[in-house]
Amino acid sequence: MTKSTIIKVLVSTLFFLVFLLYLFMRSFPASQKMEMHVPAQTHRLAPVPVSPRPCTCPPGSVQLKDQIPEDQFDKVYQRRKEEFEKWKKRTSSELSKLLLAPPNSPLQYPIQGFTVPPLRRCPIPGLKLYTGEQSRYKVILNVRNGLLSADASLFTGEVIVKGDGKAEITVESSSLKFLNAVLASVSYQSSFYHVHTADLASFSFENHEAQFPIIIRQPQLPVLFDMGADISSQVSITIKTFLRYDNLKVLLSSIRRFYPNITVIIADDSIEPEKITGENIQQYIMPPAQGWFAGRNLAVSQVTTKYFLWVDDDFIFSQSTKIEKMVEVMEAVPELDVVGGSVQGNTFHFSLEYDKGDETEGGCLYRKSHGRFHALPGYPQCYLTSGVVNFFLARTDCIQKSRFDPLLKRVAHSEFFMDGLGSLMVASCSHVSIGHQPKKNSNQYNNFRKQTGSEQAFKYQLHFFKNNLKCIKFG
Amino acid sequence: MTKSTIIKVLVSTLFFLVFLLYLFMRSFPASQKMEMHVPAQTHRLAPVPVSPRPCTCPPGSVQLKDQIPEDQFDKVYQRRKEEFEKWKKRTSSELSKLLLAPPNSPLQYPIQGFTVPPLRRCPIPGLKLYTGEQSRYKVILNVRNGLLSADASLFTGEVIVKGDGKAEITVESSSLKFLNAVLASVSYQSSFYHVHTADLASFSFENHEAQFPIIIRQPQLPVLFDMGADISSQVSITIKTFLRYDNLKVLLSSIRRFYPNITVIIADDSIEPEKITGENIQQYIMPPAQGWFAGRNLAVSQVTTKYFLWVDDDFIFSQSTKIEKMVEVMEAVPELDVVGGSVQGNTFHFSLEYDKGDETEGGCLYRKSHGRFHALPGYPQCYLTSGVVNFFLARTDCIQKSRFDPLLKRVAHSEFFMDGLGSLMVASCSHVSIGHQPKKNSNQYNNFRKQTGSEQAFKYQLHFFKNNLKCIKFG
Repeated sequence: MTKSTIIKVLVSTLFFLVFLLYLFMRSFPASQKMEMHVPAQTHRLAPVPVSPRPCTCPPGSVQLKDQIPEDQFDKVYQRRKEEFEKWKKRTSSELSKLLLAPPNSPLQYPIQGFTVPPLRRCPIPGLKLYTGEQSRYKVILNVRNGLLSADASLFTGEVIVKGDGKAEITVESSSLKFLNAVLASVSYQSSFYHVHTADLASFSFENHEAQFPIIIRQPQLPVLFDMGADISSQVSITIKTFLRYDNLKVLLSSIRRFYPNITVIIADDSIEPEKITGENIQQYIMPPAQGWFAGRNLAVSQVTTKYFLWVDDDFIFSQSTKIEKMVEVMEAVPELDVVGGSVQGNTFHFSLEYDKGDETEGGCLYRKSHGRFHALPGYPQCYLTSGVVNFFLARTDCIQKSRFDPLLKRVAHSEFFMDGLGSLMVASCSHVSIGHQPKKNSNQYNNFRKQTGSEQAFKYQLHFFKNNLKCIKFG
Repeated sequence: MTKSTIIKVLVSTLFFLVFLLYLFMRSFPASQKMEMHVPAQTHRLAPVPVSPRPCTCPPGSVQLKDQIPEDQFDKVYQRRKEEFEKWKKRTSSELSKLLLAPPNSPLQYPIQGFTVPPLRRCPIPGLKLYTGEQSRYKVILNVRNGLLSADASLFTGEVIVKGDGKAEITVESSSLKFLNAVLASVSYQSSFYHVHTADLASFSFENHEAQFPIIIRQPQLPVLFDMGADISSQVSITIKTFLRYDNLKVLLSSIRRFYPNITVIIADDSIEPEKITGENIQQYIMPPAQGWFAGRNLAVSQVTTKYFLWVDDDFIFSQSTKIEKMVEVMEAVPELDVVGGSVQGNTFHFSLEYDKGDETEGGCLYRKSHGRFHALPGYPQCYLTSGVVNFFLARTDCIQKSRFDPLLKRVAHSEFFMDGLGSLMVASCSHVSIGHQPKKNSNQYNNFRKQTGSEQAFKYQLHFFKNNLKCIKFG
């Protein structure tokens, strides 16, 4: 053939190739170029951020360590450190580690929501390799605290599975379709019983590795309260009393004016207890002067209704003490645990600002009077906050989030909301209120009630240890 | 120039192009070919698996609905449904949804561990685009319940940010380097206060979209107990008594033989209470016959030590009642909430098998006597299980996971562990035991103690409602 023919052939081939090249250039994933320079390990498990810098105590804070007698400090400090370590172990898991999804990985896998009951085999959803023609495909999956299995029975000879029933499994095939079919059958089983923990799976193909969490959770049995038909089957009134029977009687008769049948639970640690009787009135006699929070805890422990209404023994019910309105808010926003009202027009709510600081030194807490967040949707009279006044409606099971610490014998209130910070959802509402009886002066009562210096010091020592705090500011 | 020269040029160009093409073919990511056929949306949020099929009651199960009086059934069933809906709302969040990581996405993003306090601005770690040369890059990030912001101040003119301070932000640039620098500055702030919830972020570039969770968590204040120096500062003994003062006195003196100072808390609902006195013995007087679990709840509510030891009023301490050994196990495995011992050589532990079934119909529960899981590492005498005998050491704050339901007045025990299923970590140990006093026959006591048919029916009605169950089998 002539040279011109050769040229024609060459030129056309050339154009064809250039066109082909152009096509590839277009379809070529820019990402991939970059990916070549990105070693897979940069996408491995990122380290947990180390414990943050010490927190700063706002001016006017109480330095709690100064409240611990010098000769005891080292021992107390050591014991607190040990308890805090155990607390961390109870409250953290693999789930707190930071994980990143690696870019340009041909692997598909679950990043959230794969939850298995302990010791039960469950298929892992979404495992798949998205890659193109090649002679052989091999993926590896491994876990730390469980076993993996895969069903390749339909693909004998086509798919090779190694490590079936072990912590690391390899699936290999010359067919991507068959490989993915077997990946879809891979299941996980935890090796240990735990009610709530996690395992970490690593899934890899060639130089691509991805890690994802497996949540191990024993399904919880629901614990529901029957609301019954009326307010008496929904709410109980809880009272702690000490010496002030005259006040208590005024309160009780005011309750009965508006709520004739509602159950009233009274925790009484008076020195010489007087018998209080009446329909649906339950009196519990404690050892004398056992204390304020012990009494609150006792009263709440006896509640059988979904909610309890906390009132002090010198309060007095009025027209505007509408428990139903508080129940309405709670039912409309089921996440709420506590809804406070107002005492003689004052809501006395406060917010808590907490910086956990350096864990061995302890955190910084700021109790901000009148502090609050935003209004509840649909309830402009109610604001989310951290703590409320002595008059509040609470879910009986909120005690499963925070306790009235019986170590607090005299003056105490905010402490319940401090211990519940991060657990309790609290709102303060101005549209329900209760009255306060005129103050009387009983010396015997005041002697117990007023907080001595040593009691104040004890409270600070308690915050230092119990809450792992460095300082508190009461603003 | 001559044709031959042209041919040479063409041929060499041809070879060069073929070589170029070969290089591309090699570096070309097989995965990408496949990716073209995979529409991004198949990787979007996968639906939450719908409520499972009804569970099957094992033979010998009690059908709980048959225990509800027919005329009340519809109302009760409706109320249960409503309470269960609220319970679901309280216990679930975006975190329960299944999410898959899309393959071959050029995006890097956090899949786990990005936790922010409510209403606080926090930088999102790991956001990055891994893609190659192109004239312009544009990524979009959006959230549902928060605001996003980015700092492009150093790149004015180079990077365009749209929607700063809004729920959707767009970052655009002709420089990948600058774009990623701005992505590294992107921060999230929740719009609502909540102690524990989640937001869902969507991150996209061209046809690639990835979704990842943002956990919103108010940091919790730790609540630690001071172990002090000796067993008396670590454990309190809790007892519920009714009429059997002779038994109680035998128990108390046996306790004092081995533990002279340990605090003993007694909840007493006897018809005619007798005063019980003694160093570190606290007696609480309840309304007459208030009930078994009410008394247990009362006693535990008064505990100020890290642990409490539960004993019945007709038990008796012996040489082998070594509380220290139980404390040792608890301290070695901080996740444990309850450690049971043996009563006269019997551990009486049981496991609970729970299938939540169809949520409106209810779940199936099987209490398997002698059921247990595996031994505790390092403690071959201790096995993990779901419930234990009446003699156990428990963390005082385990009551924040399960309550002794005061509605259970007479025969009750497993109910505490049922309500705590999925929350309580329970172990049964055979190396610590307590004795049982010889049974006496008091008619008055037996009249109260023995369970009447109506009480049995009430318990089944309670399980039906409270635990949203269809049936229970006691094996």
